[in-house]
Amino acid sequence: MTVTDLDATLAASLRSWLDSANQADCDFPIQNLPFGIFSDARAPRAGVALGDAIVDLAALAEAGLLAVPGADARAVFEASTLNGFIALGRDAWRAVRVQLSALFAQGNARLRDDAALRERVLVPQAGATLHLPVEIPGYTDFYSSKEHATNVGSMFRDPKHALLPNWSEMPIGYNGRASSVVVSGTPVRRPLGQLKLPDQERPVFGASRRLDIELETGFIVGRGNALGEPIPCETAEEHIFGMVLLNDWSARDIQQWEYVPLGPFNSKGFATTISPWIVTLDALAPFRVAQPRQEPPPLPYLRHAGEHGFDIRLEVRLQPEGAAEPSVISRSNFRHMYWSMAQQLAHHTVSGCNTRVGDLMGSGTISAPDQHGYGSLLELSWGGKAPITLAGGGTRAFIEDGDTLTLAGHCQGDGYRVGFGTCAGTILPAAAHDFGGE
Amino acid sequence: MTVTDLDATLAASLRSWLDSANQADCDFPIQNLPFGIFSDARAPRAGVALGDAIVDLAALAEAGLLAVPGADARAVFEASTLNGFIALGRDAWRAVRVQLSALFAQGNARLRDDAALRERVLVPQAGATLHLPVEIPGYTDFYSSKEHATNVGSMFRDPKHALLPNWSEMPIGYNGRASSVVVSGTPVRRPLGQLKLPDQERPVFGASRRLDIELETGFIVGRGNALGEPIPCETAEEHIFGMVLLNDWSARDIQQWEYVPLGPFNSKGFATTISPWIVTLDALAPFRVAQPRQEPPPLPYLRHAGEHGFDIRLEVRLQPEGAAEPSVISRSNFRHMYWSMAQQLAHHTVSGCNTRVGDLMGSGTISAPDQHGYGSLLELSWGGKAPITLAGGGTRAFIEDGDTLTLAGHCQGDGYRVGFGTCAGTILPAAAHDFGGE
Repeated sequence: MTVTDLDATLAASLRSWLDSANQADCDFPIQNLPFGIFSDARAPRAGVALGDAIVDLAALAEAGLLAVPGADARAVFEASTLNGFIALGRDAWRAVRVQLSALFAQGNARLRDDAALRERVLVPQAGATLHLPVEIPGYTDFYSSKEHATNVGSMFRDPKHALLPNWSEMPIGYNGRASSVVVSGTPVRRPLGQLKLPDQERPVFGASRRLDIELETGFIVGRGNALGEPIPCETAEEHIFGMVLLNDWSARDIQQWEYVPLGPFNSKGFATTISPWIVTLDALAPFRVAQPRQEPPPLPYLRHAGEHGFDIRLEVRLQPEGAAEPSVISRSNFRHMYWSMAQQLAHHTVSGCNTRVGDLMGSGTISAPDQHGYGSLLELSWGGKAPITLAGGGTRAFIEDGDTLTLAGHCQGDGYRVGFGTCAGTILPAAAHDFGGE
Repeated sequence: MTVTDLDATLAASLRSWLDSANQADCDFPIQNLPFGIFSDARAPRAGVALGDAIVDLAALAEAGLLAVPGADARAVFEASTLNGFIALGRDAWRAVRVQLSALFAQGNARLRDDAALRERVLVPQAGATLHLPVEIPGYTDFYSSKEHATNVGSMFRDPKHALLPNWSEMPIGYNGRASSVVVSGTPVRRPLGQLKLPDQERPVFGASRRLDIELETGFIVGRGNALGEPIPCETAEEHIFGMVLLNDWSARDIQQWEYVPLGPFNSKGFATTISPWIVTLDALAPFRVAQPRQEPPPLPYLRHAGEHGFDIRLEVRLQPEGAAEPSVISRSNFRHMYWSMAQQLAHHTVSGCNTRVGDLMGSGTISAPDQHGYGSLLELSWGGKAPITLAGGGTRAFIEDGDTLTLAGHCQGDGYRVGFGTCAGTILPAAAHDFGGE
């Protein structure tokens, strides 16, 4: 029996002796066990989210309660990124998952009844700082939601031929900027750049006026491939460690002026935010679904048997500065994705391009078929023409300074959920600049 | 007197006691002193090319003949990349340059007359292996030759409006794939991918039939910037450590099908080759020239006083498998570049995007105004319609298997040259594949 089968069969009945992990609306039950990097008074190190706590993996290893096959567990988990752990391979990830699953299961007294050790091992999430979980050698962003590509094509190009001919043949992607990927909670400064205003012949320089989000997920490469050795689609998921939420902040005015012919650059490179906890594919296994039917059928190098979609409910919240509550401005689902993560990875590497442990691959904006589930303000306000109304009053065509944008996502099980936590960022006003300009 | 002034004034008269460095056609005279990473029987470490030798910087430091202000010189130079050294800053780079310039100057007996030490410090280039000189956290490629952009625009889009309106306003760039940047000499496998043939409705899968080079240079970031803190154009050169030759291998058929709307991806990501020696801006200082006149005048954030072009003579050689000699298929010059490196870096960061030590920034294809100086086969054969004739017989529209493509470049001084060495790669046949396809 594989771990995946085990997950699927037993998931709903699992309970932990840690009460906070058993709440129905808790993102981090014992079924999840996502990996991240945290710090408190001590230096950044590896942890797993459980209930309202973080399991300090280095402390567990030090206490002799957690082993990693073929490695010094304490050293592996005292690192300030997960790359070393991830590089040990899927057997190591699963061995840790199985040990934690046993150690925190209801009825296991070993840690539960050792108050002093429990104190050392369980760090309250409330007092901890979360960091980027991996060092990201490369960041690629795809464009794999048919609804999003159709909406954008309608607005930016030709509504009658919104979907370009290549879109249905391959998971279109582009290289993003890895240096500016930040962890949830990092403020994002409104970018400066060139804007082409309709009433002026030349562009002006200034702060973006059409700042937007893109509701995405991302996956973290867990096993790379050598240059010249493509990853077959059938086995591509074995190369994926897990998933995060990803906000591909986008300055639409900068983008529209710069993107022909080499694609988006400054309009995206100023920041990309990811959620701090990496949810493993094993944790997501019970929520597999079929991806949308692909017509035309993909070329052979993009074919894979089985179900490669995931039923992940996603939402976007916008909270203006000073507002009491956020408004939910979009509800979507990862299951709408036309191209699977496996297809994305197979396509990325079919040229011979190599990937490395920690590489981040964004899904592209995940728009639902209905307009309340569009994954960007560009689509929700239809190019700014139809501003949306916020719950607490006010409207938005694009993001205003002080707004906090939050992505959230979870898979709904029977009485529990496997959640991603949140991916949030607050917009700071553009920097003062003395370049001249507007 | 600054080091730059010193270089400019004294450059022509400098001679070394190492005879091979004084040959008029030697790329690595005492005026140059480019940095790289090499190995022999011992592990990779830092070196400087001089004549036909490599100066082993770790060995020099160990002998007490080379100090680095504020650092342990031996540890710095025993690293397998230059990133640690570069991160020490421009004062450190210059201090090393000045010490080497003195130590190897004609008349300095210290090392010249110590045969045993000389033996340890000077490693023959012929027996050494050269490695990637830096770990590259991010790779960006620009598109800054007006001639190239015009040629490509004519072929791929509309000859009447070849140059897009945004091109004259900003150094257009895109994020490249850092993982597949390889050092000169690494074989390059012909990529597989989707090709859209004119007589077929759907794309086919197979090996690229229009494999090409792009003659470029690249610069290595020597000092990064924090997220949200743009680098001003006026001082951007202070952030540049030095330059290399760069071949942006491109599969034109894959590119033409995939590049709308997000830019080139698999058509470029399979390999990018750089030369192993990083030539510092100090070594290039005597060869500064004015860049082409910019009309319209750039927006204020892209303005800088002074001369920011460099007179670097470039050529491309193609040698078929088994041919006795290479053919020179193009002669161009970096001085034709419309946008300067400083402007590229200022534009890249004006959005707030951060850069890091070791980042590689490609110039874009450097095409001369005349057709014998075009920087790609796409342009030289005008889209394949006018194959070029090779010196040893035969023609080429695009690259064939077994061809070796070599970029070379140097600045011509009075009786000496500051050269880049070569940037070469031989094309291997496409991998066998069982994906189905053609």
